[in-house]
Amino acid sequence: MRFLTAGESHGPGLTIIVEGIPADLPLLAEDIDRDLARRQVGFGRGGRMSIETDRVTFRGGVRLGRTIGSPIAMTLENRDFKNWAVPMSVSPVDLGDEAVRAQLEAKRITRLRPGHADYPGAVKYGLADVRNILERSSARETASRVAAGAIAKQLLRQFNIHVHSHVVEIGGVGAGESVRPALPAFEAWKDLFERVEQNDLRCHPDLYERLRARVVEAAKGGYTLGGAVELAAYGEIPVGLGSHVHYDRRIDGLLAGAAMSVHTVKAVEVGIGTAAARETGADVQDEFINAAGEIARTSNHAGGIEGGMTNGQPVLLRAYLKPLPTMRKALKSIDLITREPFEAHYERSDTCAVPAGGVVCEAMMAIVLAQELQRKLGGDSLAEMLRHAGRGPV
Amino acid sequence: MRFLTAGESHGPGLTIIVEGIPADLPLLAEDIDRDLARRQVGFGRGGRMSIETDRVTFRGGVRLGRTIGSPIAMTLENRDFKNWAVPMSVSPVDLGDEAVRAQLEAKRITRLRPGHADYPGAVKYGLADVRNILERSSARETASRVAAGAIAKQLLRQFNIHVHSHVVEIGGVGAGESVRPALPAFEAWKDLFERVEQNDLRCHPDLYERLRARVVEAAKGGYTLGGAVELAAYGEIPVGLGSHVHYDRRIDGLLAGAAMSVHTVKAVEVGIGTAAARETGADVQDEFINAAGEIARTSNHAGGIEGGMTNGQPVLLRAYLKPLPTMRKALKSIDLITREPFEAHYERSDTCAVPAGGVVCEAMMAIVLAQELQRKLGGDSLAEMLRHAGRGPV
Amino acid sequence: MRFLTAGESHGPGLTIIVEGIPADLPLLAEDIDRDLARRQVGFGRGGRMSIETDRVTFRGGVRLGRTIGSPIAMTLENRDFKNWAVPMSVSPVDLGDEAVRAQLEAKRITRLRPGHADYPGAVKYGLADVRNILERSSARETASRVAAGAIAKQLLRQFNIHVHSHVVEIGGVGAGESVRPALPAFEAWKDLFERVEQNDLRCHPDLYERLRARVVEAAKGGYTLGGAVELAAYGEIPVGLGSHVHYDRRIDGLLAGAAMSVHTVKAVEVGIGTAAARETGADVQDEFINAAGEIARTSNHAGGIEGGMTNGQPVLLRAYLKPLPTMRKALKSIDLITREPFEAHYERSDTCAVPAGGVVCEAMMAIVLAQELQRKLGGDSLAEMLRHAGRGPV
Amino acid sequence: MRFLTAGESHGPGLTIIVEGIPADLPLLAEDIDRDLARRQVGFGRGGRMSIETDRVTFRGGVRLGRTIGSPIAMTLENRDFKNWAVPMSVSPVDLGDEAVRAQLEAKRITRLRPGHADYPGAVKYGLADVRNILERSSARETASRVAAGAIAKQLLRQFNIHVHSHVVEIGGVGAGESVRPALPAFEAWKDLFERVEQNDLRCHPDLYERLRARVVEAAKGGYTLGGAVELAAYGEIPVGLGSHVHYDRRIDGLLAGAAMSVHTVKAVEVGIGTAAARETGADVQDEFINAAGEIARTSNHAGGIEGGMTNGQPVLLRAYLKPLPTMRKALKSIDLITREPFEAHYERSDTCAVPAGGVVCEAMMAIVLAQELQRKLGGDSLAEMLRHAGRGPV
Repeated sequence: MRFLTAGESHGPGLTIIVEGIPADLPLLAEDIDRDLARRQVGFGRGGRMSIETDRVTFRGGVRLGRTIGSPIAMTLENRDFKNWAVPMSVSPVDLGDEAVRAQLEAKRITRLRPGHADYPGAVKYGLADVRNILERSSARETASRVAAGAIAKQLLRQFNIHVHSHVVEIGGVGAGESVRPALPAFEAWKDLFERVEQNDLRCHPDLYERLRARVVEAAKGGYTLGGAVELAAYGEIPVGLGSHVHYDRRIDGLLAGAAMSVHTVKAVEVGIGTAAARETGADVQDEFINAAGEIARTSNHAGGIEGGMTNGQPVLLRAYLKPLPTMRKALKSIDLITREPFEAHYERSDTCAVPAGGVVCEAMMAIVLAQELQRKLGGDSLAEMLRHAGRGPV
Repeated sequence: MRFLTAGESHGPGLTIIVEGIPADLPLLAEDIDRDLARRQVGFGRGGRMSIETDRVTFRGGVRLGRTIGSPIAMTLENRDFKNWAVPMSVSPVDLGDEAVRAQLEAKRITRLRPGHADYPGAVKYGLADVRNILERSSARETASRVAAGAIAKQLLRQFNIHVHSHVVEIGGVGAGESVRPALPAFEAWKDLFERVEQNDLRCHPDLYERLRARVVEAAKGGYTLGGAVELAAYGEIPVGLGSHVHYDRRIDGLLAGAAMSVHTVKAVEVGIGTAAARETGADVQDEFINAAGEIARTSNHAGGIEGGMTNGQPVLLRAYLKPLPTMRKALKSIDLITREPFEAHYERSDTCAVPAGGVVCEAMMAIVLAQELQRKLGGDSLAEMLRHAGRGPV
Repeated sequence: MRFLTAGESHGPGLTIIVEGIPADLPLLAEDIDRDLARRQVGFGRGGRMSIETDRVTFRGGVRLGRTIGSPIAMTLENRDFKNWAVPMSVSPVDLGDEAVRAQLEAKRITRLRPGHADYPGAVKYGLADVRNILERSSARETASRVAAGAIAKQLLRQFNIHVHSHVVEIGGVGAGESVRPALPAFEAWKDLFERVEQNDLRCHPDLYERLRARVVEAAKGGYTLGGAVELAAYGEIPVGLGSHVHYDRRIDGLLAGAAMSVHTVKAVEVGIGTAAARETGADVQDEFINAAGEIARTSNHAGGIEGGMTNGQPVLLRAYLKPLPTMRKALKSIDLITREPFEAHYERSDTCAVPAGGVVCEAMMAIVLAQELQRKLGGDSLAEMLRHAGRGPV
Repeated sequence: MRFLTAGESHGPGLTIIVEGIPADLPLLAEDIDRDLARRQVGFGRGGRMSIETDRVTFRGGVRLGRTIGSPIAMTLENRDFKNWAVPMSVSPVDLGDEAVRAQLEAKRITRLRPGHADYPGAVKYGLADVRNILERSSARETASRVAAGAIAKQLLRQFNIHVHSHVVEIGGVGAGESVRPALPAFEAWKDLFERVEQNDLRCHPDLYERLRARVVEAAKGGYTLGGAVELAAYGEIPVGLGSHVHYDRRIDGLLAGAAMSVHTVKAVEVGIGTAAARETGADVQDEFINAAGEIARTSNHAGGIEGGMTNGQPVLLRAYLKPLPTMRKALKSIDLITREPFEAHYERSDTCAVPAGGVVCEAMMAIVLAQELQRKLGGDSLAEMLRHAGRGPV
């Protein structure tokens, strides 16, 4: 599977095309909308989110609730577009009309926000109105990835592979703690993620009160918070997704690249991550045992990846997200055009978007795993993929 | 530029083809060999390295010391191949000959080493002799990447862009300390890296004694150590490498993916990385100032990347490497075929390969930056690239 | 630039995402619609076309009539979708409702049409209703390519590069004749294509009556006709698009692959094509002359390509299209499910779609040339590309 | 599978890396050398070929006669390199040495040969010595493709898929004749190609005397000849290689692009090709019949491809090659530097290289089919691919 996405934050809406999904996969808009809703909800997000309950519309590739092998097109409408019809018009507007000019001017931006794409984007694309950059660099774009990822997850589920995430740190709270289930892990992971979905920070219940308090504190203080999410793929993980034979086929590289491409992510760990760098060799590796004739492990420090390949254990990553760069407390900045200093402006009221970020990272992880599964199994229909995998329908 | 590499650890040698380098770039074997030597040297490495002083041979794409636009082929000979001619023969050997059979058998491996590609590789490729996996999954492969990266660095240098690395942690020592130069940084980085190259751990002189002591301690104890390297691209970093417009063009994702594809790397940070997740929004962003009419910054927490694009500041990454999985102290494992338990065998005497890993990460970083620079500038010859960049030859 | 397209013939509509177009390119829906209309019009097409006057809607990547660097999303609505809402529903329909079941059954297809994707598509994707194949394999898909190609043409025009086509053969009439302008050719090509656009077969006026008569004859006889189109890129063709250095960079291969990917195209020629294979070496090559100090040619047998690169002459291709496989006169076929023989069914009344095919081939040619131009020039905005090309705005 | 190639005509030799071949495929140097020899031999080629009997050396990816999943490196030595050591030196030479300077000057080329890459290559890469272009644009490069293609053919053979070619036209002789076997075709194609290999023009025995006479005539007259080759993939062709769902997955486009990327190819036809454009719809399509319960055909005008997918019939292409541009009879040209006119120089004595070109086209066809087979079947080892295909070893 491969995909392209398009759409600006305040434009007509988002558009996604996913090519290469096998035929006859059951796929409903609800399968997508569920993850879109998970991305939108989350304690710590401001009011803006409440107005957009994202619902996907299929425009191709799906018929009567099943894929047909052709590219899948999806759109997400921006219900607020009517209020932006002039400044975000795709066609030229009447610049002779003063009201129109005023609307354009009101939405023009030249003041650079630190931590955003504003400055490098404006320079790269040679554009004097920073709105042309921020409309696309906004986290709104990630809804497209969640939609594509939801299709990947639906495919993986047919092979009893599940991808999920939970928040493990916010603003430093939770750092150094681990809630990873012991091995063998299928039921434990499943149970954990069911519980995680029941709270609005999408975290382990034991962490909830502490994380929530941290967000409340920040909201009161007028600052923003980042945090960390743990990503897990569990179930019947095939041995040998990715490959050691060429650098660009190593699945740890592919997964880390996908996760780091998510807005605000500044660090990615596989397995025990940075801790591995501080342990001795004898403590880091995962020993093999013979468990009733099967090859098994006593630990999963490697996060399910050895030699750039999945080893059959749950695949575990952590992504660390910086605080949102927009904030109530002002930052020093300058104007792109006049070069005059100002206090960086305020646009959004989200205090913490870590739960949302986790859903996006989860989507990216699912996409990489689905791509590698397809590479390994081949097949143009779900039935053919299942047959290649030596399985009947789940 | 794009490249493919081939070659097994004990086979005839390594082969690298790099396609897409502009014509008329000065390029000597010494430019490559210098980095190959940097990869090989390093306190903490065992005896094996001493026998292979890597020297590259060009077989195409270079004429009279300059590139000609066609693909560049390089080979690295394995001088020890004569001792492996039978077990690593590319053609079938005489299995009727008992001595031949004995040599094959002596090199056959079925005992799985935890932390290596052995198990997933053997399962993925359906091979009963693990040697078929480990010969390619060995870190020997990374010499190919260093060779390709050296060409990327040579290209970047023409634009006054420099990529370098230094070791900042070994076995926990150095953790939490920072030796990043203050801004503006060109001379400071240059100076740092000159000093770093003068010791055999490739670290800041202030760290050297402590890191060395840690390695000596581990060598005595018979265990291995990991650590961390910092990667920096500095000089005249263009604004706008990478792009915010599509997830797979974000340069932080591309860089992190490249770094995580390096053997033993288990975590990658951009800028202040995980620390960003624990700070508040006001402390993490890099404020803009007007410095004599130019847009400038007072800090570089972002590691030179905002919105998935370079912002003109030095590009800073950290990679965390786990300890080498082979070690004197045994680990529990089992035999791939018989499923019988054993104590994992010992193959290599390296205590710490972090300095070498840093050189490989550096190569991967240079490759990504060179690719993005080419994408931005276009051009089929060095002169054309320089003209597009608005510069004369450096 | 890269692009994905989606959409079934009787589904909600077509969706196109084009990524990688530089910022600040003037782009109006009319620029796309013009070519969409050219694809639809053409003597010899049946009634169905008259109901869909394609008009593109931008959903991203364009603001106030100019591109902003982000991916461009376009949709084309299927105005007839209301009549297909049940059988082409993306979501499951109520199979308990007899009327619904009847509608589904009425549109179900199991009779294989020779010359279509029906048979290989149904086998490949494991689908028992051939409608799932033909909805995407229909020529309707090519409207998406024309939309993407129109953007490519708009980019090329900024560099005074023009891509156009004309019909040169229908049903054997016109074969062996050539209407290629003599060199130097800019005005001659421009004039030719202006005249070509004035008739509904998009051919040289001298050919019009004969070609039209051939189509009328076929319509009366109840059979279909193919033909040939000539494609030309002219104006200021840069020297050196494509490359001799690697097989997959040769522009003749890229162009031929793009043209052969168009429905019904069964042969592609570069320059004098098959005739080159029948001439002697002395007659085929294009001699060089010194024309007032400039390197010039006395002929263009090579079609503007030598060594896999453009040589500055007009780029000339011919594509040969087979007759449409659906026809009034029946063909023997069998049912996919029952394996029973039948006479292949009739779906469409087009006698000849060669003019439309030419517009699609033209789009594909423009896309390849735009991609190679971008590769050579780099640049993220139109201004930057023009600067790299050493030109001001046209 | 993907591959890169490198190497200049008079440089040290050729280098090829093929990545993505499944493990455990039997592969001997002889499997490659056989096709390399077929490329070299052929009536009508001059003396130069006799000195280079190409023999491939594996440098990676193959062990004990079988692939191991890692990238396959191959080299072909240029045995004549000792005579070119100075002018083709990869490193700088001593320009203070007059003998060295003389050797360089003797091999320097500034006179442009019409029909070659000389002019566009020199302009594109900004190089004043045309030798830097022609060394790579020479047909010598195609030996690399034949080597890669031989691996693809070896893979295809495991699935009883065979790719072969024969010469069907030289200098106009043979045009309009067809020697395609009737259906069902396996034995007939096999028999044809066995007979074809027995003569030095690699053509049907019935054509041999006439084609040979045409070449003798041209050799006497001092001019060169082109011609046409037919390419066939036959045996158990899977239904559904390629896809109708996206333009860049259509196998006719992929095959035509690959064939057109071969030196001197100026036209490519699928099935009956240009003839299809001149027939009526009823005569061009291939009717379906029920042959003892199996879906079968009564003709193969489509060349085994419908809707951009293989339909199970033999895949048939024709490629038309122009005469070699170098010739004894001079052509007008000019000097790249001085712009002075001259008569284009003579370098090679080949009168006709069509048989060699056919072997290269055959390699490219095999590569495309192998790639699509891998895409359909997935699998990391030969056994896994065979299992996915529902077959045991052949």
